[in-house]
Amino acid sequence: MFQTYEDSANPALGKTRTANLREELARRGLDGFLIPRADEHQGEYVPPHAERLRWLTGFNGSAGMAIVLKDKAAIFVDGRYTLQVRTQVDLGTFEVRHLIEEPPARWIEENLPKSGKLAYDPWLHTLDGVARLRAAAEKAGGALVPVETNPLDAVWDDQPPPPLAEVRPHPVEYAGEPASEKIHRIAADLGASGVNTAVLTMPDSIAWVFNIRGADVPHTPLPLSFALLHEDGHADLFIDERKLGAEVRAHLGNIVTLHPREALGDALEALGRTKKTVLVDPATCASWIAAKLSDAGAEVRRGQDPCELPKAIKNDAEIAGTRAAHLRDGVALTKFLAWIASEAPNGGVTEIDAAKRLEAFRAETGKLKDVSFDTISGAGANGAIVHYRVTEATNRPLKPGELFLVDSGAQYLDGTTDVTRTIAIGTPGAEERDRFTRVLKGHIGIATARFPEGTSGAQLDAFARMALWKAGLDYDHGTGHGVGSYLSVHEGPQRISKMGHVPLKAGMIVSNEPGYYKTGAYGIRIENLVVVTPPAPVEGGERMMMGFETLTLAPIDLNLVEKSLLTSEEVEWLNAYHARVREALSPGLDAEMKEWLAEATRAI
Amino acid sequence: MFQTYEDSANPALGKTRTANLREELARRGLDGFLIPRADEHQGEYVPPHAERLRWLTGFNGSAGMAIVLKDKAAIFVDGRYTLQVRTQVDLGTFEVRHLIEEPPARWIEENLPKSGKLAYDPWLHTLDGVARLRAAAEKAGGALVPVETNPLDAVWDDQPPPPLAEVRPHPVEYAGEPASEKIHRIAADLGASGVNTAVLTMPDSIAWVFNIRGADVPHTPLPLSFALLHEDGHADLFIDERKLGAEVRAHLGNIVTLHPREALGDALEALGRTKKTVLVDPATCASWIAAKLSDAGAEVRRGQDPCELPKAIKNDAEIAGTRAAHLRDGVALTKFLAWIASEAPNGGVTEIDAAKRLEAFRAETGKLKDVSFDTISGAGANGAIVHYRVTEATNRPLKPGELFLVDSGAQYLDGTTDVTRTIAIGTPGAEERDRFTRVLKGHIGIATARFPEGTSGAQLDAFARMALWKAGLDYDHGTGHGVGSYLSVHEGPQRISKMGHVPLKAGMIVSNEPGYYKTGAYGIRIENLVVVTPPAPVEGGERMMMGFETLTLAPIDLNLVEKSLLTSEEVEWLNAYHARVREALSPGLDAEMKEWLAEATRAI
Repeated sequence: MFQTYEDSANPALGKTRTANLREELARRGLDGFLIPRADEHQGEYVPPHAERLRWLTGFNGSAGMAIVLKDKAAIFVDGRYTLQVRTQVDLGTFEVRHLIEEPPARWIEENLPKSGKLAYDPWLHTLDGVARLRAAAEKAGGALVPVETNPLDAVWDDQPPPPLAEVRPHPVEYAGEPASEKIHRIAADLGASGVNTAVLTMPDSIAWVFNIRGADVPHTPLPLSFALLHEDGHADLFIDERKLGAEVRAHLGNIVTLHPREALGDALEALGRTKKTVLVDPATCASWIAAKLSDAGAEVRRGQDPCELPKAIKNDAEIAGTRAAHLRDGVALTKFLAWIASEAPNGGVTEIDAAKRLEAFRAETGKLKDVSFDTISGAGANGAIVHYRVTEATNRPLKPGELFLVDSGAQYLDGTTDVTRTIAIGTPGAEERDRFTRVLKGHIGIATARFPEGTSGAQLDAFARMALWKAGLDYDHGTGHGVGSYLSVHEGPQRISKMGHVPLKAGMIVSNEPGYYKTGAYGIRIENLVVVTPPAPVEGGERMMMGFETLTLAPIDLNLVEKSLLTSEEVEWLNAYHARVREALSPGLDAEMKEWLAEATRAI
Repeated sequence: MFQTYEDSANPALGKTRTANLREELARRGLDGFLIPRADEHQGEYVPPHAERLRWLTGFNGSAGMAIVLKDKAAIFVDGRYTLQVRTQVDLGTFEVRHLIEEPPARWIEENLPKSGKLAYDPWLHTLDGVARLRAAAEKAGGALVPVETNPLDAVWDDQPPPPLAEVRPHPVEYAGEPASEKIHRIAADLGASGVNTAVLTMPDSIAWVFNIRGADVPHTPLPLSFALLHEDGHADLFIDERKLGAEVRAHLGNIVTLHPREALGDALEALGRTKKTVLVDPATCASWIAAKLSDAGAEVRRGQDPCELPKAIKNDAEIAGTRAAHLRDGVALTKFLAWIASEAPNGGVTEIDAAKRLEAFRAETGKLKDVSFDTISGAGANGAIVHYRVTEATNRPLKPGELFLVDSGAQYLDGTTDVTRTIAIGTPGAEERDRFTRVLKGHIGIATARFPEGTSGAQLDAFARMALWKAGLDYDHGTGHGVGSYLSVHEGPQRISKMGHVPLKAGMIVSNEPGYYKTGAYGIRIENLVVVTPPAPVEGGERMMMGFETLTLAPIDLNLVEKSLLTSEEVEWLNAYHARVREALSPGLDAEMKEWLAEATRAI
């Protein structure tokens, strides 16, 4: 099993650990320390040894920061975690602040003593992040100072070692392009824009460009490492060589020079000595790296990670792979939905049972590498918690008359999936049917959109919301995020949200997931992944139009559809989608399942 | 009559005038000169003495720039004018370039000789504009140099004098807020943001904040002038006092100190001497002003004109005024539409006849101050020219079987209107009905939108396009622009377009004008003005939603509506709108007109 359901928080530990950290800070003559939920790579998942925020405070959410001063401390979390944090941390030790509305910078301005030295670990903060925090410290009359070694690590006795999971080549059959060609392509772009070398710090960029995969963090096959990509097509990979077997060494041998992780500093200094122009992404690159470069004399050019956009634009092999992955995943999900339909109304199925069963159906495919994130399995009121993760403490049964929301995904060699279905257990109420149908209208609004080249997700996001807006309803998350190819289930730069200003390009995979959440009652979300289709002629039209091809194949619960709220075009889409689901999945199902699917996907 | 239909272009003059200008440049030791289509206020309309680009080249479009070097010259126009410019300028003297795709900066880089001195009149270029041009001149190894006096003016023998139209107070009954309160409000904002003084260079900002109107340019009641607004609520107005009668002197006496226009420089120097922080809008402020401030020692703070946003948010009196203006305008327009319906099918009505008749119906209201822009009166293929202005040379009859597009507006004391209707002369074809109905679906998509606070026009623009996009069609202009209150018919900062990132606020007036244009065949546009409504509860909903109230009252041609393409919600909107139009306008019409309107607004 790839996920657990424990709730390991122990708020009591925070007090002692914070006291120990304060002693260490005092020994070093520091007045405070920043503890972000981050590792050196700024990824969504961090390895156990980098779970410093969790170790110190008990808070186990996926974003946040703590600040420990001599006589006070605060923890900053976003809207997803404002309730959870209060059950996980010692409120006597940590004030709780809203990460966005009461950001750390403001707290520093108000609380750092004059002449106070606020320390940070420059490996754990980005260039952009440090600039904001430094300004705040200086406004308070203090200073932001980097540390050579992390003072928290000094008091974390049983800190686990960094992960050493095996790195393997990602077959070109799935990657669709040899690593040498990717490197060549990116290197040529660097040269054309006057950059000598790019620093790659995001492990998914490194995984993509070198066609390798690892297992250093949960649920995403990342090989934690750093790389330099030079305009002449040469590349350096900085990685703990214990992760490398013979096969991957042979693969990498032709395309990179291998170095130990510790050699990165010397390599950056060498770039500085030769006055190179070096590209770093200020939104993700550790400030340690940029400082090392500047100090050594390099010209630091700020710009987007050069792999981010090309990685997001999937090639034909990746798209074929994701289609195969979704077909396989759809069969597993359909078996699960049929199982829920048969078992849940009798009672006795809990959220954890459901999550385990779904993972088991996926494992039965024989191809499951991991789940792509912890399953969100939320019955009744738990479904209204957008980023709910079920634990033994919160687990509850799926009760007749309630809705059940399940958001899950898989990692297969040929693709990454992410799908949400909302299911009525027993007979749903009229309000639930109204809300579900409005969410469905939004989902169809995105699925059927056509648009010219240059259109961004920000221009389309409201199509997912208008049926809700007209009823005075909304949801507080974006409509869609980018998805990798056997990589991160959340990737940029594209997204469907009011902030998604990057034009959509053919081959980008993005989720289509409008929702509606009634706190304390139920949650609804309908999520399919879609791939952006290339500009194509429209019959009788004049201009080429792009669009979305839906990748996810699984029935949408017809018990929740109020047909009278749908336009004829919307009914047509739903029936056509269900016909496609039935046709695609039936060959992989036994007779009984096939019959269930036929009924679940009947035309309305 | 407020508009003419002559085409005064005489390409032959350009050669001689350019030669004369080159002699003047040589006398001054300059290698080139920039001639933008701009005055000191960067407005859409410029007074005759500032029509330098037109005088030099013959080009009479509303945007563009010429560059004259010793041995070559170029004129830059945007996509609207690429055909027109070739009939108006001497192509032996001026190369034609695309203003956006082949911008002046690039041409300068490629054509300015090394060490060349390219001159500009710092009154006619903005801060932002000069920065771009300077970088280009320096890339070419030359320099961009300001002139003290405009060399073109030196060779323009019969250059008209600056306008001296009377300035009048704008009654508070229409303005809705005394000037003293507006000044107080803006001054408080300045103080709060650490600004001592704001320079106002946009005449519509000055007109708005001081509640005055003028007539220095066509179609917009602008009093050309400059102003300083100080954080203590004191204000200085720099204006030719010959424009001021006793009434407006009395009105202004309490709120501003009057100065001659020429005193501005000294006042800016005084701000510098006292080390003031002075706000200038880099997108609209003449670089002369910013340079004067910097040179004198002031701290120049770049930021948005402080009147722009408050001016765009109309108060209750302005909204009541615009409703009254639209009612009046709707009666005139309906009379016109009935006249077209009765006369055009018999032949003999030309585009100019139609424009004159429409202006006459508006004049009959007894309240018409001006048209708000030159009427776009385009029959058949002329309707496909988005910014068409009919002249004696292009005039053509409205022919049965063709479409007629008429985009027009009025200036009334209580409001500014802008409306487009597309009318089938005789029986329209199936394609025209299909396209018109798709444009109508887009129009209704905007008209019926609801949205939460913080939503921008960029998030809504695609609702006006999706029915076209799905058919492989589109239009190459924004969906909506801001509209003033007895002021500019185009105002910012809000707009409905992919670039409209300013959140819509209650009280903003914006146009809703999707279209479709088939080059050489016909044009379609349906334009109503709408006002943004405040956040309000929705029955059965949870969140407050904003929306649009349609202001324009005039029938939409039902002969062009293909009902089978509309959803039931869209049909409902059309019928409700037409019922409202009928009810509102009938009291102002005679029995025959009433009958015509009843038929034109029948439920479908």
